[in-house]
Amino acid sequence: MTAERCPDEFIALAGQLADASGAIIRRYFRTPIPVDTKADDSPVTIADREAETALRTIIEDAHPDHGIFGEEHGFVRTEAEFAWVLDPIDGTKAFISGMPIFGTLIALMRNGKPILGIIDQPISGERWVGAAGTPTTLNGAPIETRKDSTLATATNYTTHPDMFKTDDERTRVDAMAAQVALSRYGGDCYAYGLLATGYVDLVTEACLKIYDFMALVPVVEGAGGIMTDWSGAPLDRHSDGHVLAAANETCHREAMAYLKDA
Amino acid sequence: MTAERCPDEFIALAGQLADASGAIIRRYFRTPIPVDTKADDSPVTIADREAETALRTIIEDAHPDHGIFGEEHGFVRTEAEFAWVLDPIDGTKAFISGMPIFGTLIALMRNGKPILGIIDQPISGERWVGAAGTPTTLNGAPIETRKDSTLATATNYTTHPDMFKTDDERTRVDAMAAQVALSRYGGDCYAYGLLATGYVDLVTEACLKIYDFMALVPVVEGAGGIMTDWSGAPLDRHSDGHVLAAANETCHREAMAYLKDA
Repeated sequence: MTAERCPDEFIALAGQLADASGAIIRRYFRTPIPVDTKADDSPVTIADREAETALRTIIEDAHPDHGIFGEEHGFVRTEAEFAWVLDPIDGTKAFISGMPIFGTLIALMRNGKPILGIIDQPISGERWVGAAGTPTTLNGAPIETRKDSTLATATNYTTHPDMFKTDDERTRVDAMAAQVALSRYGGDCYAYGLLATGYVDLVTEACLKIYDFMALVPVVEGAGGIMTDWSGAPLDRHSDGHVLAAANETCHREAMAYLKDA
Repeated sequence: MTAERCPDEFIALAGQLADASGAIIRRYFRTPIPVDTKADDSPVTIADREAETALRTIIEDAHPDHGIFGEEHGFVRTEAEFAWVLDPIDGTKAFISGMPIFGTLIALMRNGKPILGIIDQPISGERWVGAAGTPTTLNGAPIETRKDSTLATATNYTTHPDMFKTDDERTRVDAMAAQVALSRYGGDCYAYGLLATGYVDLVTEACLKIYDFMALVPVVEGAGGIMTDWSGAPLDRHSDGHVLAAANETCHREAMAYLKDA
């Protein structure tokens, strides 16, 4: 992570954004709302759309020069120095099933690299905040990843096995998963929050979009974890959507031995 | 479900049991406790063991003639007219990962058939109570399964694909899952609670033990759902661990067409 400290004013604004989305999402959670299907076959609801609209309005008012990359309402000013990356509900499939382990993802990039990330779970009231130059917090308290785990003792999460589209991806991931102590499905962004808090050691995913992973990077790295693509490179706006989050260097190195391109 | 009403005194006692286990589990959740591995390779912690001990003590004091089937501390008086079936933490793998979607399962059988079931999630504070002759409640409010769903519109949950051990099981489940609108992994007992509350339409599982499924039956059936084994027979203490929970008859019939023995 860059040594540059994220300005406090942006951390405060990101908190306001999470407050605004949470209020909207709580209103719709476990209510009978229609579920639409997007072009990529993923579900979307009025809660996703209304929450993103609210966030964009706040950002446009505060910083009309900032870029916005939103899952539901598109990208504007993509070349701006500062750009927000928004996923109002990461885990819409969990949300529409009534499972309270989805989250709102809010990231701020500077020149295409993440300097601020929030994972907000509006039902449990858990908020992870990661900002360059400061330790990651969960509801205000500093947190740390697990330092002593290895691949052999690791708990690994993946949201769904269908994320891995090619035989090559499946072969690598299966070989890695065969080495860990515990491998589980489900979780979406919440699994990264648990990794930052020291309960999960690896999250292995593919097919993620910029709005799925960008906010996770400062949360994981500010807690002492490592987050890269499957080549071991840092994540930025040009990453290909293959993601490995690890609690520590040992877990990262040992998992990467299976995932990395030959 | 039997038309016989579950005695109020047993419903009250089950509530006391859930209060007692919840207090213990909350004390250990997200704390660094050792994880042991049992003979069947599943994890267990002091939270599981201490919670079950507390429940057994309460039952032995109140009804020394009742049977007890406990996951951690064994079976006693298995032929008693009334017998309690206890899983202090269903979803220990979620529990040790910090995921708040495990639950305590408490069932009462009369002559081997379930007449009372509780799913208690002690972190979120959600408690589902199902008792023969009364509607299932979530935190005291009556709930109902979804009435208008079909296999084609269904959300289906399975805790983990490794539950299906044989090619035959996997072939049937995959064929069924290919027909539903949404198929997700993860959830343990919590998915059955969501089914009873109208957010999930099917839960398809195998390899369940008596303490994994017995409490779920009154919760699901008292909310209008259907719960059987894969032959379509009601679940009792001799069931083989193949379980299908469905929100309504249409979902059950259409899913069973794929799962049922030829």
